[in-house]
Amino acid sequence: MTVLPLPAAHALLPNGLRDLLPPDAQDEAQTAQRLVATFLANGYQRVKPPLIEFEESLLSGAGRTAAAQTFRVMDPITQRMMGLRSDMTTQVARIAGTRLAGAPRPLRLAYVGQVLRVRGSQLRPERQFTQAGFELIGAADEAAVAEVLLLAVEALDQAEVTSVAIDLICPPLVPALTRALGLSDAEAAEVRDLLEQKDLVAVSQTVGAEKARLLVDLAACVGPAERSLAPLAALALPPEAAALRDSLVRLVRQVQEALPTHDLTLDPLEHHGFEYQTGSAFALFARGARGELGRGGAYHSVLADRDEACCGATLYLDAVLDVARRAPVPPRVLVENDLPREARRALQAEGFVTVPTLAGPASPEEARRLHCTHFLGPDGRPVPLAP
Amino acid sequence: MTVLPLPAAHALLPNGLRDLLPPDAQDEAQTAQRLVATFLANGYQRVKPPLIEFEESLLSGAGRTAAAQTFRVMDPITQRMMGLRSDMTTQVARIAGTRLAGAPRPLRLAYVGQVLRVRGSQLRPERQFTQAGFELIGAADEAAVAEVLLLAVEALDQAEVTSVAIDLICPPLVPALTRALGLSDAEAAEVRDLLEQKDLVAVSQTVGAEKARLLVDLAACVGPAERSLAPLAALALPPEAAALRDSLVRLVRQVQEALPTHDLTLDPLEHHGFEYQTGSAFALFARGARGELGRGGAYHSVLADRDEACCGATLYLDAVLDVARRAPVPPRVLVENDLPREARRALQAEGFVTVPTLAGPASPEEARRLHCTHFLGPDGRPVPLAP
Repeated sequence: MTVLPLPAAHALLPNGLRDLLPPDAQDEAQTAQRLVATFLANGYQRVKPPLIEFEESLLSGAGRTAAAQTFRVMDPITQRMMGLRSDMTTQVARIAGTRLAGAPRPLRLAYVGQVLRVRGSQLRPERQFTQAGFELIGAADEAAVAEVLLLAVEALDQAEVTSVAIDLICPPLVPALTRALGLSDAEAAEVRDLLEQKDLVAVSQTVGAEKARLLVDLAACVGPAERSLAPLAALALPPEAAALRDSLVRLVRQVQEALPTHDLTLDPLEHHGFEYQTGSAFALFARGARGELGRGGAYHSVLADRDEACCGATLYLDAVLDVARRAPVPPRVLVENDLPREARRALQAEGFVTVPTLAGPASPEEARRLHCTHFLGPDGRPVPLAP
Repeated sequence: MTVLPLPAAHALLPNGLRDLLPPDAQDEAQTAQRLVATFLANGYQRVKPPLIEFEESLLSGAGRTAAAQTFRVMDPITQRMMGLRSDMTTQVARIAGTRLAGAPRPLRLAYVGQVLRVRGSQLRPERQFTQAGFELIGAADEAAVAEVLLLAVEALDQAEVTSVAIDLICPPLVPALTRALGLSDAEAAEVRDLLEQKDLVAVSQTVGAEKARLLVDLAACVGPAERSLAPLAALALPPEAAALRDSLVRLVRQVQEALPTHDLTLDPLEHHGFEYQTGSAFALFARGARGELGRGGAYHSVLADRDEACCGATLYLDAVLDVARRAPVPPRVLVENDLPREARRALQAEGFVTVPTLAGPASPEEARRLHCTHFLGPDGRPVPLAP
């Protein structure tokens, strides 16, 4: 296929939005399908929420962090504002808490779909993503998070994305610690920024050496799990932080046992983009992918009078496609457009794409012109075109 | 799965938008995948345009009829208006005419995706549809339309939608006739309305008995092809109308030969919703489906300095799902959540969904509570739950 990568052609689309061309569009669809097949085989059932819904339901609960990233449109029928989803997790939680409120817990739901964001990031200029994910509704302990993490890795493995590296984090851990240390909200926010910049000296200057000690000790636990897990487990922490840490440590041990050859990194200071996580969480990476392959963790779904502990994972198809094995391009054979259906189907069953000719005979020249790999010989068998 | 069909739960979503729940969401995805697999096996290559793009490209050419049905959003980056697609045909034509301008013709492209419409119709209140379709770019004679029509029927057949009924139409035929009769635009529009109401007396009164004769003769050709084709072929028409009619007749004969047992209906007066068709066109129906399964036909893609004859077909998944065979629901077996991966994968290879237990042992009672069909016996084999 001759593709024109002209700037003029690109400029037809808004920044961050793009056309997927052959073979990428099919590769993405096939990879999404393989990921979902693994979710379904493991007890998750597919749901499909709409692309737009009332902004008050789309941006409630865990969705409120998405408000700035959500396109709004007016519904001319109800005269109410609707939002174009920028994430599907809130929608799945809404379905679980309303239409499926009576289904037994834990409830396992899977989804795949498009999401749109008002702005791309520097790392990911794209504004439309394909998300494939699943949610475990009604469970969020480390066994639940482990199920979700291991299933995400298994799905990637089935899509032939191997050598996945895992970051294990606990977004509420630092806030629990700063609360226990009696820091004000302003001090806590400043400390988070300084920890992120690894400026431990400034942390000490801000809150004093005594209060900084635990934070500095925690910062020393960032690194490969085989080196960092023991010091993290040994830290003397105040009760709330200790409970979160203990849960993270149990999760890491479970993941180490299940995935002994994967790279596990502990990052108990990480929190960006995980604002709605209420316990252990994770991000998945692979060499060759521009950004995260996916992420997940524990959160709460709060809907009207119902508050459910949940966990889930989302995979981003654009990043997964950077590293997933691409399906081989099938051979294409030019056939007369009146070739009987049975003959055509027999060639397709052998793995050929049959390309009907519309102008003139199905000659080798026409086959070459239409980017076929084969033409039909006099005996009706495909003959490869000379290279 | 216990589903609450409460009005309160429904009211969470804007009118015409809905959640697909298990098993419908998976049935839709699987049916779409089967349709596309047939398109791809027959030489069409998948493309995936974005959900939103600049309205001037989305609503240009054949897309201009969609303007009233298109949600608009402002792009905060470029400050230009973007539209949420209400149809994918224009997007695929744009791709063909820009990025793939250098690809050999005929160019065969397939797609599946969501479209959104500002308002639903009485027959179809839905405002979000899944479209699966394909476009044949650079060909629009009756051989091309026949390829497209027969492939659409074959794809439905592969999705186990049988007994498809076909309406064959020619939207530009009546306009060609009214032009040849020298009717003004206003008279022509009035005549179309009257023909639609089958008010042939009023047609005569409006344009006079002599001019009305051909229109009345044409109206007599509406009906089953085996009865109506011969009179349509025999009509003495002015040249432009005769050429369109001849092409329709050749198409009908080709379809009769290929699909001898299908119901074919001629409706040379039909034009609603086919405003951008430039030649023969068709709509597909099946008993049990609320609306059309799909439609297609010949059109022109006009992009900047390029004008290409095209034809294509679109299938609507909501209507197709009304009549497609649903996949059997797989058996679900409850397993301990630490069941080794190999044992789990072996059960999945046998067709079981494995549902991990998170609370307590994988007992028959827990299996029943989680809507499983089986539990694991002491020998590790699935045991069906007593009904």
